[in-house]
Amino acid sequence: MTGEFAFIEALRALARDPAARGLRDDAAVLPFGGELLVLTHDTMVAGHHFLPTQDPADVAWRLVATNISDLAAKGAQPVGVLLSYQLTGDEARFLEGLHQALAHYNVPLLGGDTVASSGAQVLGLTALGRASHRPVPARDGAHVGDGIYLSGPVGGAMMGFEALQAGSQDEALTLPYRRPQAHLAQGIALAPHVSAMMDVSDGLLLDAARLGKASGVTMALDSTAVPLAAPESRRADALRWGDDYQLLFTASGPLPVPAFRIGTVMAGDDPVLLDGAVPEGNLGYMH
Amino acid sequence: MTGEFAFIEALRALARDPAARGLRDDAAVLPFGGELLVLTHDTMVAGHHFLPTQDPADVAWRLVATNISDLAAKGAQPVGVLLSYQLTGDEARFLEGLHQALAHYNVPLLGGDTVASSGAQVLGLTALGRASHRPVPARDGAHVGDGIYLSGPVGGAMMGFEALQAGSQDEALTLPYRRPQAHLAQGIALAPHVSAMMDVSDGLLLDAARLGKASGVTMALDSTAVPLAAPESRRADALRWGDDYQLLFTASGPLPVPAFRIGTVMAGDDPVLLDGAVPEGNLGYMH
Repeated sequence: MTGEFAFIEALRALARDPAARGLRDDAAVLPFGGELLVLTHDTMVAGHHFLPTQDPADVAWRLVATNISDLAAKGAQPVGVLLSYQLTGDEARFLEGLHQALAHYNVPLLGGDTVASSGAQVLGLTALGRASHRPVPARDGAHVGDGIYLSGPVGGAMMGFEALQAGSQDEALTLPYRRPQAHLAQGIALAPHVSAMMDVSDGLLLDAARLGKASGVTMALDSTAVPLAAPESRRADALRWGDDYQLLFTASGPLPVPAFRIGTVMAGDDPVLLDGAVPEGNLGYMH
Repeated sequence: MTGEFAFIEALRALARDPAARGLRDDAAVLPFGGELLVLTHDTMVAGHHFLPTQDPADVAWRLVATNISDLAAKGAQPVGVLLSYQLTGDEARFLEGLHQALAHYNVPLLGGDTVASSGAQVLGLTALGRASHRPVPARDGAHVGDGIYLSGPVGGAMMGFEALQAGSQDEALTLPYRRPQAHLAQGIALAPHVSAMMDVSDGLLLDAARLGKASGVTMALDSTAVPLAAPESRRADALRWGDDYQLLFTASGPLPVPAFRIGTVMAGDDPVLLDGAVPEGNLGYMH
């Protein structure tokens, strides 16, 4: 939405703190008590960010995992979350999924707010983390000549979403969409070794373009090198689908964890190139 | 709502951190680095927490001020906010009010999220502060014999809300509701001198009962001692109306700032007494 981006720009102008990273694009980093606090907030609206028919336990998981993934991309250890929850009248499944996700990431629920129901459910989560390495990985540090890496395959969430939307009961197939994983341990391990890092939430090509733009470089990707969790026939779609929450990063030296090299950082004006050309169509999911 | 409180209890059980203060009831306190981080999140829904016809600039102000007030009650200096904003298509007035409030409290917008519109607008704000004094004032510290104090009059927001609802163009009359003040300087000055403190957001009697219950004492209030910003004929209502965000606190010694003594902490099973009796009717606004 055009208006949305103008608003975000206006909000950014309001963000007078130099550590501010802007709204939604990236987690904020705030010096506090001799350490660095990493902060992120995601809001999800039924019908926009999740299917209104989805199991609320999966929605709760997703809400937690997407925020923890933002911390992972900063190499930050979660220290707590605050929940904004709009009541539905039957909160049992949401609570179960919330409990599972908080236990999985070992993060406490510190507080939040509950409000009355009104139309499409709106959920919000603020996650706080402690940076494990300085400088905190950001999007603007990629250097020409760095390798471009992905922590794992993309496309699994797309396949899962499509199956879920079609009413599939195949839990293994829908799992990658229903229960995305935040790659927390990898993010923390990688933080000292990367020149730039982010999580892929809106599509590999779109997020690579954002990283390229922030760094003032060209992210030259080799499409066939991108690992897929989808049929080969869906490769073009999988490169444009978000929700897999893999870590996308650039680095020049050896890596402490396995990752897939998918390209090379080059000099140039195009933030992303795919097999040497500007990618066709939408690059990803514009919320 | 019955279901709401069950949910909050369930969420509290999930909040495994001992510093957790529960959802909405109180700000959370989290040791971070060598300092104490104070955290709060308020969610507001159009039609529930503000009039859908209100100037969005006033709504933005209110969203900021209510959260800053939660920090004030902890004696915490704001360090930043994260905004969750549901787009309406015309964000200019909201942005103006947001800018005014952030400038007024000198607090940076660190980040957040914007989402598409869907029905009643839902807004959320997470505010972070730095505790200025240890222990951080809480609700559970009132001692028998302490004086009970209020930082200023109640009832102004009630009068303003009623005028606004009636379509009044009298800006001075509606101001206390439209632009509530968080008593930040007072909260920070008071923090070393209080045994318990909170802000009055849901009504003086209800919030006094919460403080009394948390401390295991009786808050014995003298109704005529409560300063009013409303006609005397509305005293009973003003004691039950929220949105004035005065600080309610207990203390035994001299105070560094002016305040109104409105009662005495006593031993007893009733969390609040008004002129020696259990108050009649609703104690306040149950969201």
